[in-house]
Amino acid sequence: MQEPVPCDILLTAAFLVTQDDDRRIIEDAALAVADGKVLALGPRSELRDYAPAAEMHLGDALIMPGLVNAHTHAAMTFLRGFADDLPLMEWLTQNIFPVEKHLKEDIVRLGALLGCAEMLRTGTTAFADMYLLENAVCEAAEQAGLNILAGEVLFSFPSPAYRTPEDGLALVREKALYWKNHPRVHLAVMPHAVYTTTPELLRECYDLAREFSLPLHIHLAETRTETATCIETHGKRPVEYCRSLGFLEPGTFLAHAVDLAPDEVDLLAETGTRVVHCPKSNMKLASGVSPVSAMLAHGMLPGLGTDGAASNNSLNMFAEMSACALLHKVSTGDPTVLPAQTVLDMATLGGAAAIGRPELGRLTPGGPADLVALDLGCPNMQPVYSPVSQVVYAASGHEVCLTMVGGKTLYDRGTYRTLDCAALFKEVQALKKWVLEKRG
Amino acid sequence: MQEPVPCDILLTAAFLVTQDDDRRIIEDAALAVADGKVLALGPRSELRDYAPAAEMHLGDALIMPGLVNAHTHAAMTFLRGFADDLPLMEWLTQNIFPVEKHLKEDIVRLGALLGCAEMLRTGTTAFADMYLLENAVCEAAEQAGLNILAGEVLFSFPSPAYRTPEDGLALVREKALYWKNHPRVHLAVMPHAVYTTTPELLRECYDLAREFSLPLHIHLAETRTETATCIETHGKRPVEYCRSLGFLEPGTFLAHAVDLAPDEVDLLAETGTRVVHCPKSNMKLASGVSPVSAMLAHGMLPGLGTDGAASNNSLNMFAEMSACALLHKVSTGDPTVLPAQTVLDMATLGGAAAIGRPELGRLTPGGPADLVALDLGCPNMQPVYSPVSQVVYAASGHEVCLTMVGGKTLYDRGTYRTLDCAALFKEVQALKKWVLEKRG
Repeated sequence: MQEPVPCDILLTAAFLVTQDDDRRIIEDAALAVADGKVLALGPRSELRDYAPAAEMHLGDALIMPGLVNAHTHAAMTFLRGFADDLPLMEWLTQNIFPVEKHLKEDIVRLGALLGCAEMLRTGTTAFADMYLLENAVCEAAEQAGLNILAGEVLFSFPSPAYRTPEDGLALVREKALYWKNHPRVHLAVMPHAVYTTTPELLRECYDLAREFSLPLHIHLAETRTETATCIETHGKRPVEYCRSLGFLEPGTFLAHAVDLAPDEVDLLAETGTRVVHCPKSNMKLASGVSPVSAMLAHGMLPGLGTDGAASNNSLNMFAEMSACALLHKVSTGDPTVLPAQTVLDMATLGGAAAIGRPELGRLTPGGPADLVALDLGCPNMQPVYSPVSQVVYAASGHEVCLTMVGGKTLYDRGTYRTLDCAALFKEVQALKKWVLEKRG
Repeated sequence: MQEPVPCDILLTAAFLVTQDDDRRIIEDAALAVADGKVLALGPRSELRDYAPAAEMHLGDALIMPGLVNAHTHAAMTFLRGFADDLPLMEWLTQNIFPVEKHLKEDIVRLGALLGCAEMLRTGTTAFADMYLLENAVCEAAEQAGLNILAGEVLFSFPSPAYRTPEDGLALVREKALYWKNHPRVHLAVMPHAVYTTTPELLRECYDLAREFSLPLHIHLAETRTETATCIETHGKRPVEYCRSLGFLEPGTFLAHAVDLAPDEVDLLAETGTRVVHCPKSNMKLASGVSPVSAMLAHGMLPGLGTDGAASNNSLNMFAEMSACALLHKVSTGDPTVLPAQTVLDMATLGGAAAIGRPELGRLTPGGPADLVALDLGCPNMQPVYSPVSQVVYAASGHEVCLTMVGGKTLYDRGTYRTLDCAALFKEVQALKKWVLEKRG
């Protein structure tokens, strides 16, 4: 008889969707966690020799890797539903910008904490985030226990976080040093977009990213208007403009990438540049349909992102997966494109690669124990013919009954272990008045 | 001092979305129920003189009318996720039909009960349903406590419910008499589609509908292939064909109505024919985009439907509302089309009108107490700037904490008052083997 192997936690559940290289799905499964990592996983019968300090028998549930929200603005959650159904420029210039210009760190932190609560509730364990006063978002993610790839949004004009672009770059540099070596809070360089930055600032961003080996993230080719403006200002379409500045490469990931010509998809694939697709935001703002099936045909695996709650209006990656699959089927006229497994790959492996954390989005021995469990005891989750279909097409995200990062339970059947949601909601409700005053 | 007015239940909540003619939204609201109807509603301060037998203080919650799922096949819930991401004909002929030809009443009842559980869980209180052996669906809805407009699906060839079309019509006649005067179970005449029926059968359906004053419901203009086949077989496009048979009128409601020419929208509007839009099903099967914004411009208010769980894969009307708004914004390129209030109108008033129950989908004194409450204590529901935006864009449907039909509580924070979900799930899981055998 074998000596029992000690571990911290042993989880069991009806299904385990690993997202490993073989996309293995295990029935009647067990997963052992030690030191924040997956020690072993397999059919429950094969994990009998583990001696766990704690056991979590989830019963009729499905364990899967935590989802990666590869493009969001978590702090904007305080503006959820504040202005909908408007033309983009009216939405931005008369509603969002007038509020944002008055932002302070405590508001950003509060909005980000609310966003983190929603992500914990709906199975997201890592997110890429771009915003003003981003350090407050880092602090919120740190408190919540989530993984973040964070970037202060960089403009060529002043923001509430800095007076000049040089101050902005200095702030990124300072925070990159501050958070260096943090296991969950990672930084990136995030210029806002080609229409809010000069070529000089974009070059400096790229130099800074290379100096610190940080990813570079930018909104790109979101709308036809952006393309027209870029041609007018820089004589080139957005992708070509970025190539001319030298930063189409695997360390760069682009949010949206909607208005792309076919040769631009080729170019992104050839250079290994990564893309984050935000279907719900692109639909709600009527930006267009990103050529995701062409990207997949080129061997690219885009990540998925919710964008901010002011244009979505949720940070729920399950809703994003469903919208992603459905949008591309109807827009291509082909019900076989973007099958469920591909969409789940985007929401896990694709996002993990985009944000420079390839160890995330999969459950494999030695990898981080960043996982979620879905309760299959909801009528919409029955019966289960295909666990992956159920995750992508049937789940609402609110079946999530457990969210764990690095082996630490952050959300467990209605209990938020790291956040005081009741207090948070009160603060957010109180903030409403301030927001409405600022809109005027 | 006034004499207290007796009532059965007094509900209070932070918000009440009435969907009355003024689309009144009441904060800090109360609603009194007596004899299954709304006795009174208004700000809580105005309902102090009611003496209820029971009180339900829902706190930070939003009360709204129960949603109307105006086109579904509830029994197909047992086939959720059974076959996805396939071309339509392969999906139907190699997967769905081989199973359906073996259907028996107990399987239909079981599937329908699961569908009813999901609808109760996600805030639907009335649905229009077309299927084989539909009487079992009526029994399921009766047991669950939901409103149903039910129709045996009529083909010009045999079905598990009848050998000949005449037998099918006789069955509809028999069941219409059987359920006559039932307060919640109403019947309709439901020929399947123009490509599965003869003109003779369609005429007989229409005559039967007029004889019994029943609504007529048919799948129409779902795909371009249907249009091509209809032209080939009948020399007319589907809408023109239906007009030639005489049944474009307010008592008829069409599911899908995707492949419409502009003059066909005119014709539907002129004749008062009603339409049920099924955005998620149309997207998943890549059928196309129904010209809903053109219908709205013509003064039509389509209903919303989920279609069956084999092509959706859920019966969640909140997911359907969000998909509806987003699909039309992106497909028209206009973020202002189908604003949240319009989409909520479709899911309530539009569906109620389509299924011939105009008293549903709104909360007004004297109307039925068919209502649901959403728990706003979920992070994705905070903050609330616009209750209607929150319902359409932010809710997942799993915030529903109370579902009531005719003043009777059917679902209350995890408890199903009329269904034994645990037993149901076991039966559905046992049925999986049978299904997989039949596919072969």
